[in-house]
Amino acid sequence: MRFTVLATFTALLAYCWFLLKVGQARKKFGIEAPRTTGNADFERVFRVQQNTVEQLVLFLPSLWLFGTYVSDMLAGLLGFGWTAARVLYAAEYYADAKKRGPGAALTFLIGIVLLVGGTLGAVLTP
Amino acid sequence: MRFTVLATFTALLAYCWFLLKVGQARKKFGIEAPRTTGNADFERVFRVQQNTVEQLVLFLPSLWLFGTYVSDMLAGLLGFGWTAARVLYAAEYYADAKKRGPGAALTFLIGIVLLVGGTLGAVLTP
Amino acid sequence: MRFTVLATFTALLAYCWFLLKVGQARKKFGIEAPRTTGNADFERVFRVQQNTVEQLVLFLPSLWLFGTYVSDMLAGLLGFGWTAARVLYAAEYYADAKKRGPGAALTFLIGIVLLVGGTLGAVLTP
Repeated sequence: MRFTVLATFTALLAYCWFLLKVGQARKKFGIEAPRTTGNADFERVFRVQQNTVEQLVLFLPSLWLFGTYVSDMLAGLLGFGWTAARVLYAAEYYADAKKRGPGAALTFLIGIVLLVGGTLGAVLTP
Repeated sequence: MRFTVLATFTALLAYCWFLLKVGQARKKFGIEAPRTTGNADFERVFRVQQNTVEQLVLFLPSLWLFGTYVSDMLAGLLGFGWTAARVLYAAEYYADAKKRGPGAALTFLIGIVLLVGGTLGAVLTP
Repeated sequence: MRFTVLATFTALLAYCWFLLKVGQARKKFGIEAPRTTGNADFERVFRVQQNTVEQLVLFLPSLWLFGTYVSDMLAGLLGFGWTAARVLYAAEYYADAKKRGPGAALTFLIGIVLLVGGTLGAVLTP
């Protein structure tokens, strides 16, 4: 499961980076906890992290289904693609919320492919 | 682990549907990203998805503990019940936030049963 | 995997407690769903739960990587430390948002140690 593990590592590393950006943005834009709304510059940084949580709960179980029941190497490749799509999404969203579409769509699509593929692999395995 | 896999698939499929509803609601109610507050109609749709994330982090690990250490088939049945409860919760919440109680309580209860059962199964397995 | 399972159980039990506190806070401060903002007393309780979701998506996969590829017992010990740090964080944050630093930092640090350690263990295992 080396590729699946490395794809998990890469995805969570990107996520840690998004988490740290929220802490920075709190200071930069003067948004004191527990507040999370009321400043669009802060909210863009916050939503990148939040949306990554929302996608990780789909991605990680699906990645491991696919790595276990279909192919470790292919799971790893799709997983690295997921992280690349997430980094693209973050770069797009940090610049302009209107431009986040391609990275968001690609992340979601890879999640679905892993989920459907992994489930089929598990059900069809004799 | 076929039943546990299928219950995972069903739960995440329902979750994908809740995700897509948020995108639709952004357009329908004119709530542009990164904004998530300020319109109760949008917020009901958004909270269904958010609350499902909040429950998935309890449900998925607990489902797999139960499937691994107690029974794959029983995990699958409880898991399908979880998704049914979640769909009920969404239907209730989309209609009226005050009516979301039964679906919310049933989802949470099944999560707890899976967590406690799965942990007991793991600890008591010789 | 008994220690890893018990650390999972303990972490999710603390999380269930944070979830129930949000329900209580809704009643106490009169914040009706779907609203989540506009009252700092409610938001502190809500953010403890939300932030725990944000940390669980890092912690749980990392804990299981570490338990599987490095050591079940050490994973369990680090996992119990994570939950203790989370309870400290909650106690700090419930009292005063400005005091949440130590518990937040310790939780995050243990998550990173588990992620890096578990990944190294998986990659270096012959």
